Amino acid sequence: MESFLRIFALLIPIWVNFAALASPAAAQTDLLPSWNDGASKQAILDFVAGVTAEGGPDYVVPEERIAVFDNDGTLWAEQPLYFQVLFAIDRAKALAPQHPEWKDKEPFASLLKGDVKSALAGGEHAIVELVAATHSDMTTEEFNSIVKDWLARARHPKTQRQYTEMTYQPMLELLAFLRSSGFKTFIVTGGGIEFVRAFAEDTYGVPPEQVVGSAGKTKFETRDGRPVLMKEPGVDFVDDKAGKPVGIQRHIGRRPIAAFGNSDGDLQMLQWTCTGSGLRFCLYVHHTDGEREWAYDRQSSIGRLDEGLDQAAANGWTVVDMKKDWKKVFGFEK
Amino acid sequence: MESFLRIFALLIPIWVNFAALASPAAAQTDLLPSWNDGASKQAILDFVAGVTAEGGPDYVVPEERIAVFDNDGTLWAEQPLYFQVLFAIDRAKALAPQHPEWKDKEPFASLLKGDVKSALAGGEHAIVELVAATHSDMTTEEFNSIVKDWLARARHPKTQRQYTEMTYQPMLELLAFLRSSGFKTFIVTGGGIEFVRAFAEDTYGVPPEQVVGSAGKTKFETRDGRPVLMKEPGVDFVDDKAGKPVGIQRHIGRRPIAAFGNSDGDLQMLQWTCTGSGLRFCLYVHHTDGEREWAYDRQSSIGRLDEGLDQAAANGWTVVDMKKDWKKVFGFEK
Repeated sequence: MESFLRIFALLIPIWVNFAALASPAAAQTDLLPSWNDGASKQAILDFVAGVTAEGGPDYVVPEERIAVFDNDGTLWAEQPLYFQVLFAIDRAKALAPQHPEWKDKEPFASLLKGDVKSALAGGEHAIVELVAATHSDMTTEEFNSIVKDWLARARHPKTQRQYTEMTYQPMLELLAFLRSSGFKTFIVTGGGIEFVRAFAEDTYGVPPEQVVGSAGKTKFETRDGRPVLMKEPGVDFVDDKAGKPVGIQRHIGRRPIAAFGNSDGDLQMLQWTCTGSGLRFCLYVHHTDGEREWAYDRQSSIGRLDEGLDQAAANGWTVVDMKKDWKKVFGFEK
Repeated sequence: MESFLRIFALLIPIWVNFAALASPAAAQTDLLPSWNDGASKQAILDFVAGVTAEGGPDYVVPEERIAVFDNDGTLWAEQPLYFQVLFAIDRAKALAPQHPEWKDKEPFASLLKGDVKSALAGGEHAIVELVAATHSDMTTEEFNSIVKDWLARARHPKTQRQYTEMTYQPMLELLAFLRSSGFKTFIVTGGGIEFVRAFAEDTYGVPPEQVVGSAGKTKFETRDGRPVLMKEPGVDFVDDKAGKPVGIQRHIGRRPIAAFGNSDGDLQMLQWTCTGSGLRFCLYVHHTDGEREWAYDRQSSIGRLDEGLDQAAANGWTVVDMKKDWKKVFGFEK
């Protein structure tokens, strides 16, 4: 008997563990502490309870629990400019000595004079030029290092925080909560896939293979006798608007059951997600907090949310009022 | 005390389970029973032991344990023709009544007369025509159903087995063994990504989001008021040869540490995998068994393995001699 008791003693930690998993007390722990109580938080909790209730009418097997998240404006801030554009501007400045011709060529000429507004007045064309010049002619591994290095050093112009600190605390909690409920979380970004991969695993807990994004052309070749993947200037895929469902199908091959965005660029992703059969969840983050963050929607050139707001109302999607629904916006807030 | 004993009794199955996981007896269970003892099997076991030995010089953290597998000729057979081409031929026959013009148009005219050889004499162009006509103008969900339905009914011309039975038993064991050792297993196929996804989860235990492959163009649109993803005729990506490392980077975003193929079409994937730093594993399946399967290599139009054999010898990659190394080829063998 004694040896039995000894074995039993050894098992106590395991048993305690199992008990914790199953006990109602554990289930009541608030896994979304930065969300104020209210309709948005309740809608999330109800959805997750529904799809995870085995034997219930809305149960979804774990392998089908796919949740997709936009990045800019949904997981981290996007003002005063998309952070990847700020990265490209810094890169252009760093590369300028090797490109004397940029002194007479837009958008570089204005940028190098510190006039970002004029540089970007060229609109999409200017951005494409800028990204092509700063995101190509290097290996994928070199690019990854450059982005990581920039993220470690650069500071946000308004908060002086690292860009990876400009992530929304409530959304980080939501990512973790969904994963703890058996979801596989994907990022589906209009930004560059390799740019976002450089920090998504550390910052969001989303591994590179679960990042979908816009992409430049890549070419396999041999350099100095070793195979490399070279980033080339051309655009291969734009993962925005109607491109998002296409990117989702290409990378994931399943229709998500939950989608999270903040702009009209996410509208088709939400439509694709929420018109599938069974219980679905679509959520827009509405930037309503001009004090803790930025307030913008229908008129904004960055992260415009116009048709999306109408569609959310028409379809009963959840719209997060950042000011009202979030106890904290950023983790660094007191 | 009695209640303690009752709890203890309840815990016995858990304890037995834990014991099984940890005991040396379990570790000695042969997880590759269809592999004969020999250099190939030993090389696999040594590699896995190396990358999973915590604290050892070759240890690799689980999230970096990415293994990539070619499909045709590596996981399932590819003779007398790639199975997806056999699918396309069957589809063309089924669709012929809606296409009276095919009676005078190659490759369809020959196909409909039952003359596959003449139909495919047009080479790549004929195949592209055939695939475009049979793999587009439907939604991704419709295509998935059509493939599943075909796989359930069609029989291999030589063995009269279902195509999903034409998978290699030793490779199924290898997939499971790697996953049980913390690997994430991906398929990287020259075949169509949506075609392979239709059976990869059931047949290989590889979920859709872990399938990389060639792809046609896809378009998001609204049909009868509902969003759909339409498969269009154009080719978007060819996941073969130098395309394989590009597809791997696009979908996975990490360099694999193990790669498995059977033809020159896999060569760049193996090169990309095995020139990374740390312990790496590259393996070619060499089709040497003309009795249980098919014997072919340097001269074959399907699954040619020529430069790959030379490179394998030069780089010390493992070459599986199907006849010698595999106790069983197919699961249905006695």
